[in-house]
Amino acid sequence: MPTLVMKFGGTSVANLDRIRRAAKRVGVEVAKGYDVIVIVSAMSGKTNELVGWVNETSPLFDAREYDAVVSSGENVTAGLMALTLQEMDIPARSWQGWQVPVKTTSAHGQARIEEIPTDNINAKFGEGMKVAVVAGFQGISPEGRITTLGRGGSDTTAVAFAAAFDAERCDIYTDVDGIYTTDPRICTKARKLDKIAFEEMLELASLGAKVLQTRSVEMAMRYKVKLRVLSSFEEQSDEAGTLVCDEDEIMESNVVAGVAYSRDEAQMTLLSVADRPGIAATIFGKLSDAGVNVDMIVQDISEEGRTNMTFSLPNDQVARAEMAMNELKGKELNYDHLQVEADVAKVSVVGIGMRSQSGVAAKMFKVLSDEGVNIKVITTSEIKISVLVDRKYMELAVQALHDAFELDKAA
Amino acid sequence: MPTLVMKFGGTSVANLDRIRRAAKRVGVEVAKGYDVIVIVSAMSGKTNELVGWVNETSPLFDAREYDAVVSSGENVTAGLMALTLQEMDIPARSWQGWQVPVKTTSAHGQARIEEIPTDNINAKFGEGMKVAVVAGFQGISPEGRITTLGRGGSDTTAVAFAAAFDAERCDIYTDVDGIYTTDPRICTKARKLDKIAFEEMLELASLGAKVLQTRSVEMAMRYKVKLRVLSSFEEQSDEAGTLVCDEDEIMESNVVAGVAYSRDEAQMTLLSVADRPGIAATIFGKLSDAGVNVDMIVQDISEEGRTNMTFSLPNDQVARAEMAMNELKGKELNYDHLQVEADVAKVSVVGIGMRSQSGVAAKMFKVLSDEGVNIKVITTSEIKISVLVDRKYMELAVQALHDAFELDKAA
Repeated sequence: MPTLVMKFGGTSVANLDRIRRAAKRVGVEVAKGYDVIVIVSAMSGKTNELVGWVNETSPLFDAREYDAVVSSGENVTAGLMALTLQEMDIPARSWQGWQVPVKTTSAHGQARIEEIPTDNINAKFGEGMKVAVVAGFQGISPEGRITTLGRGGSDTTAVAFAAAFDAERCDIYTDVDGIYTTDPRICTKARKLDKIAFEEMLELASLGAKVLQTRSVEMAMRYKVKLRVLSSFEEQSDEAGTLVCDEDEIMESNVVAGVAYSRDEAQMTLLSVADRPGIAATIFGKLSDAGVNVDMIVQDISEEGRTNMTFSLPNDQVARAEMAMNELKGKELNYDHLQVEADVAKVSVVGIGMRSQSGVAAKMFKVLSDEGVNIKVITTSEIKISVLVDRKYMELAVQALHDAFELDKAA
Repeated sequence: MPTLVMKFGGTSVANLDRIRRAAKRVGVEVAKGYDVIVIVSAMSGKTNELVGWVNETSPLFDAREYDAVVSSGENVTAGLMALTLQEMDIPARSWQGWQVPVKTTSAHGQARIEEIPTDNINAKFGEGMKVAVVAGFQGISPEGRITTLGRGGSDTTAVAFAAAFDAERCDIYTDVDGIYTTDPRICTKARKLDKIAFEEMLELASLGAKVLQTRSVEMAMRYKVKLRVLSSFEEQSDEAGTLVCDEDEIMESNVVAGVAYSRDEAQMTLLSVADRPGIAATIFGKLSDAGVNVDMIVQDISEEGRTNMTFSLPNDQVARAEMAMNELKGKELNYDHLQVEADVAKVSVVGIGMRSQSGVAAKMFKVLSDEGVNIKVITTSEIKISVLVDRKYMELAVQALHDAFELDKAA
């Protein structure tokens, strides 16, 4: 029998009605002849409740106990899903991570999956079971303790099972019906993509599209697992949603696949820094130690031994970054003052077609210039160009770029 | 190090504040030099929520999935308790049933504990851990699936750990401060007992005192585990609560230890049953098949080949019992009609002193007669006399018996 992995996120199993709805989707695939592995998240809100309790109990918690507590939400959904399927006369049973066992590293709270033995579940498929329901997001460490994979870890569980069982596809059911050229809430012309390349999805995921966990896309790319993102709230055909796949499987595509944005950015500039070798290492080493996630970095041309150093970071890390820089000032670091712009946003265009077609950056800059949007910082990669702009221009920039690259039309 | 088992029920761990309070009690015992094993229930209300979901999903549920779902509540409390203890600088860790492992039978939903290996937890005690927090009510079957022990199973878990680890005592923390001579809500003169014999506790537990699970008392009696029942809501001394122990450890005791009652009883009488050999087997076999828990049974003296058969049962099983009897009527069973009295209650006096002192029954009947309480049915055992009375007389009967046997005064 071909195997299919189906993953249902928290909103797709938020209550018993939704679990029944998800189970019906599973039934459709079973009827097609698949052996199905269902990966479930906790009912939405449950994990947050558990995390809240742990944080309130112990702000600097023992991550092993955190994992023991937080993993319980998925166990509940797995059992309820198995029961729901049984009520539909579909032979099903639940597995908790340690029962499979999903072997992970000991990095509690952010463990990595090392191995998923298939014999246990395959034996049950051999006995006539049609659906294995597996609690997502969790595993067992070499020490026999429960681990969790970190937020969004159920996506990673799903992809790992698809790879281990050589599944035909891994369907990720969520509350949106696929990957869009941009956020439909910002740009009414946003169009759902039928297919998107792993690399593009990775850039979009890390830029804030929030549909798929970055790690799960990386793993899917490495093991060539076909990922499909689709809605659990609509009737679905075989062609529904968006297929995330190898670029070889995409015959035609626009140069730019999508426009992404990240709203809550801030920009900091150290003015008139004494420029000497190792100065960047000093600044960004300190920021890293302080837990600040620096994104874009620009260093001005040095004049008279002094330069300006600009970088972007998440808005809610500004206070931490300021404190770190103040600690350096007058000691390892000599600068005039620190300038903070908290109201900036990042807008990016992403597309594997950019590899073979030049002029995308120039076009992007011209479009923004024509709209009167000032570009503060630029970074580029092989398949992405990102710019930092004043936040008030963010929607305008996204819409103008979406129009200019004609993303509302399929290739 | 001597070992102590401390069990906290659902109301004692109902929220983070109460868990902290319970943890402080644990800290007191750790400071005395004990290695402590803490058994926790789910936060109150959690198990009911989970059971509700299972029932709604699948009325005739797969008990293996029921167990997988329902056991999660205890896992949450165990982790939170371990974290709370760690915050108090007490080395602690949590264990789920399968991690110990608590080996049980495969009778899901009502499994029996078969073995609790001690090496795993003792090794950690050897490394300096002071408290092992164990999720109560659960274990693992020979097939590797999660089992639960049935309602009140955390008491049984606690006693089983006390037996396996040869603990000095098993303290059951609950929302009452001990075992009383009778229910203080009914009789203001009710007195807390310092000690009570296992046998007495068993009779009181099964008669509805509801403080300790019958099975846990049976197990404590078999393995000679000293059980102490005390409140988690009060400051406690070493002599607090009630010690449930072997009768040899009780030097002086009243002839009657307590007066118990059960409010929701019903009485059914089959009038003018054709009396022939095997008639009782027919009636009570049928009732048993129908899931009716018959308690007291009285058969009148036969006259002219016909007799009346009276029995008591829980009030909410009357409809089921009537249906069962109607199915027999005119076939295996010949009777005139069925008379139901739904408003009856059972009142019992219990005491190991009754073994050596006669006249307790006579005194009981006289007290009730003096108060004008008519006795409908009587049953006796070596240490218990129970009577069925009209429910409206129940409180009066309890109070009169409590007075007559002077239970407000210690022996």
